[in-house]
Amino acid sequence: MGAPGLFRGIGGIRGTMNPLFIKELEAIVGRPHTLSDRESLAVYGYDATPELESRPGAVLLPGTAGEIIRIMELCHGAGVSVTPRGSGTNLSGGAISGSEGVVVQTSRLNRIIEIDEENLTATVEPGVITSTLHTAVEERGLFYPPDPGSMNISTMGGNVAENSGGLRGLKYGVTADYVMGLDTVLADGSLLHTGGKVVKDVAGYCLNPLLVSSEGTLGFFTAITVKLIPKPQTKTTMLAHFPKMRQAALAVSAVIAAKIIPATLEFLDKVTIKCVEDYAHVGLPLDVEAVLLIEVDGHPVVVEEEAAGVEIICKQHGCSFFQTARDAGESLRLATARRTALSALARLRPTTILEDATVPRSRLADMLKVIQDAAQKYRVTIGTFGHAGDGNLHPTCLTDERDKDEIARAHMAFDEIFDAAIAMGGTITGEHGVGLAKKKYLPRLVGESGIRVMRGIKQAFDPKGILNPGKIF
Amino acid sequence: MGAPGLFRGIGGIRGTMNPLFIKELEAIVGRPHTLSDRESLAVYGYDATPELESRPGAVLLPGTAGEIIRIMELCHGAGVSVTPRGSGTNLSGGAISGSEGVVVQTSRLNRIIEIDEENLTATVEPGVITSTLHTAVEERGLFYPPDPGSMNISTMGGNVAENSGGLRGLKYGVTADYVMGLDTVLADGSLLHTGGKVVKDVAGYCLNPLLVSSEGTLGFFTAITVKLIPKPQTKTTMLAHFPKMRQAALAVSAVIAAKIIPATLEFLDKVTIKCVEDYAHVGLPLDVEAVLLIEVDGHPVVVEEEAAGVEIICKQHGCSFFQTARDAGESLRLATARRTALSALARLRPTTILEDATVPRSRLADMLKVIQDAAQKYRVTIGTFGHAGDGNLHPTCLTDERDKDEIARAHMAFDEIFDAAIAMGGTITGEHGVGLAKKKYLPRLVGESGIRVMRGIKQAFDPKGILNPGKIF
Repeated sequence: MGAPGLFRGIGGIRGTMNPLFIKELEAIVGRPHTLSDRESLAVYGYDATPELESRPGAVLLPGTAGEIIRIMELCHGAGVSVTPRGSGTNLSGGAISGSEGVVVQTSRLNRIIEIDEENLTATVEPGVITSTLHTAVEERGLFYPPDPGSMNISTMGGNVAENSGGLRGLKYGVTADYVMGLDTVLADGSLLHTGGKVVKDVAGYCLNPLLVSSEGTLGFFTAITVKLIPKPQTKTTMLAHFPKMRQAALAVSAVIAAKIIPATLEFLDKVTIKCVEDYAHVGLPLDVEAVLLIEVDGHPVVVEEEAAGVEIICKQHGCSFFQTARDAGESLRLATARRTALSALARLRPTTILEDATVPRSRLADMLKVIQDAAQKYRVTIGTFGHAGDGNLHPTCLTDERDKDEIARAHMAFDEIFDAAIAMGGTITGEHGVGLAKKKYLPRLVGESGIRVMRGIKQAFDPKGILNPGKIF
Repeated sequence: MGAPGLFRGIGGIRGTMNPLFIKELEAIVGRPHTLSDRESLAVYGYDATPELESRPGAVLLPGTAGEIIRIMELCHGAGVSVTPRGSGTNLSGGAISGSEGVVVQTSRLNRIIEIDEENLTATVEPGVITSTLHTAVEERGLFYPPDPGSMNISTMGGNVAENSGGLRGLKYGVTADYVMGLDTVLADGSLLHTGGKVVKDVAGYCLNPLLVSSEGTLGFFTAITVKLIPKPQTKTTMLAHFPKMRQAALAVSAVIAAKIIPATLEFLDKVTIKCVEDYAHVGLPLDVEAVLLIEVDGHPVVVEEEAAGVEIICKQHGCSFFQTARDAGESLRLATARRTALSALARLRPTTILEDATVPRSRLADMLKVIQDAAQKYRVTIGTFGHAGDGNLHPTCLTDERDKDEIARAHMAFDEIFDAAIAMGGTITGEHGVGLAKKKYLPRLVGESGIRVMRGIKQAFDPKGILNPGKIF
């Protein structure tokens, strides 16, 4: 991160972003929705990724899909780059534009267009907040499972572009598993309609998952149709403390081996436990190496059986304390430890580098060891929490970007961590995307042929390279 | 189908397929595994699609992934086209090659490489028969849900290339939902490794679903890693007769609205019922318009509750007869009606055109009406069965390809059926693929921008256009 040349190519053609051009943009979205003053540009110069800053040339807040089409047509003609942006919770620099580019923010496109109870689908505009959709569908006894950590702020458009994960990924999968249909404006302003409300569709190449991982580089979503499922009737939340980290990792494997797939199977390490306890005072022990948060959901009888199974397995694997929430309030309290992990860690030092190295579930204990060793070797503080059930870990380095030496050591530690993840059959990013921050790691994972194919796909969608340029590769 | 120009471009460059070149192919896979005699080529001139025949220049049966790489390198250099083929159960002409091309058959690549109980994955070679994998994983209490009608013959490689569906699609999804990792040989012989055993992976564009719908046009799979789930503990099979088709369609919607997602929710119409009864003598009534086959699976308590719910809903919607299987044997007997539907229909006339028009579940009754009307209007016999729960219907025209007039009328009927499916937000193919047979319909569905993007993707993977050319677009 922050390496020389990292920002190269993220804007458009030099000199195109001038007052005259901004006037033309204003004519499309209206003056109040066109921002080009210094203060506004400074605000949109960041997303949630540390160490990265780059101010756009202008920020637009369109109110209709038609305006997005006209913006794309105009920018395509002029060679001006366009970076789609939701709430800016991106963790890989994906929502940052160069000064010759335009940021197009989706906050005004925030309608839930339809909840179709017969076909079990919801159709939304890209600016709808994820948790708003959760609430709306749950009122009707339905369920939209993806629940990224930022769900109270993040937008559906951002979730789709980044294929966001979340705490319920183990049982329910990620955003890509729920996107059925997309209306996408392509780089030249033409409309692409993919999928819809049909459960089965094999008419040509399956384009939805490609768009649902495009990080804004292939198209701009104007309508998103997602699959809903019946809301689980009940859930039970459990917390287990393990003196040794390996015990916790083995318990995770044993739960799955017992054919129990919890909705949530989360993990906090010792550094994180201490930070959470200092911050939230939820009664976590300071003398254990790992805490597991486990939720099973579904039919009451199944939940009861599975919860009993989880308890037996945790105790067999040496857990020193096990608690089952008696009611919704207690369940929320137990989950607080995990939900506040990032905020708690972030308090400790000025800069928090949150990563998402991911390995097959069976390599969890090995990966945790690699993280600890790297932290020790490079003398940095790394707290690790995350989705133990799906091997998606969040090693989080607590540092200070003003301390160049420490930052350099942090990056060396992550270099080793990502190389180890790849060697274990894992990946460099489980849910945050490549953006700018992981560009240098991608070729190590997907190889020369992978990069070649991805570049070719980009070329197929956006030959002039104006959509969120400089990201991914 | 069979239209002039349909086969154009499905072979390679004229004159490249000569005895000298076949010698070079022999040197790679060995003489016993290189077929170029008239009889063999005749056998490989068909797949399961009616009306289509085109003999390849040679047929190869490689025994290792390394041999596939060498075949691709050789053919790429010479500009000879390669058509991957499993068991030839393809229903859209996707496994047919021109005479200047090579068919590469995967039957010798039939090892189950690994069943990983800790990560819940199986890794197979492309020639593994689908039901062989079912049996192998079920012995360990695990479950691979996709169950296409041809599962006792079809290969995993073919299932993946076509994104095969099946009877359990409603609850469990289709092949794409289970493919986690692929080793793919690209057109030039280079290897592409995508995904793996990680549940979450957002490193660059998500390429697996693109390959899992490529119909052999983007790459040749040499290893496939699929997700497994715990095997449902039990299931219950039910059969319901409905005097009126609309009653059955409404019952389907009501079951889903009651938040019951059956594993299987299948439908037979009057024509199909009569054929099945004549063929299999399973005691179906000849005076009803629709029969539903419903299976719920999972935990015994849930299954019991859901089965009771299904029975109440069917009776509320006017079903004239309802039966719940008392044991596995009876369950199998009830399912026979659906499983034999295609064979039963196929007995009636020499040529069976099996289609897979698909609509959102809520439009089921409307679509059935369209099919009936089209059959009447064009004086053809169409029996319809299929996956009512996911709107994936199989209108099956019973005809005789020697009767040019009737065949022309059949195609006019399907023209109307597909246009109606598109107008209802459905698709031209739910699970059979585009191949040669549906090429003319694809632009109507995906539009000019869709075709342009798909062609661009093909270009990114296979710039010389040698992999299964002439298919899809």
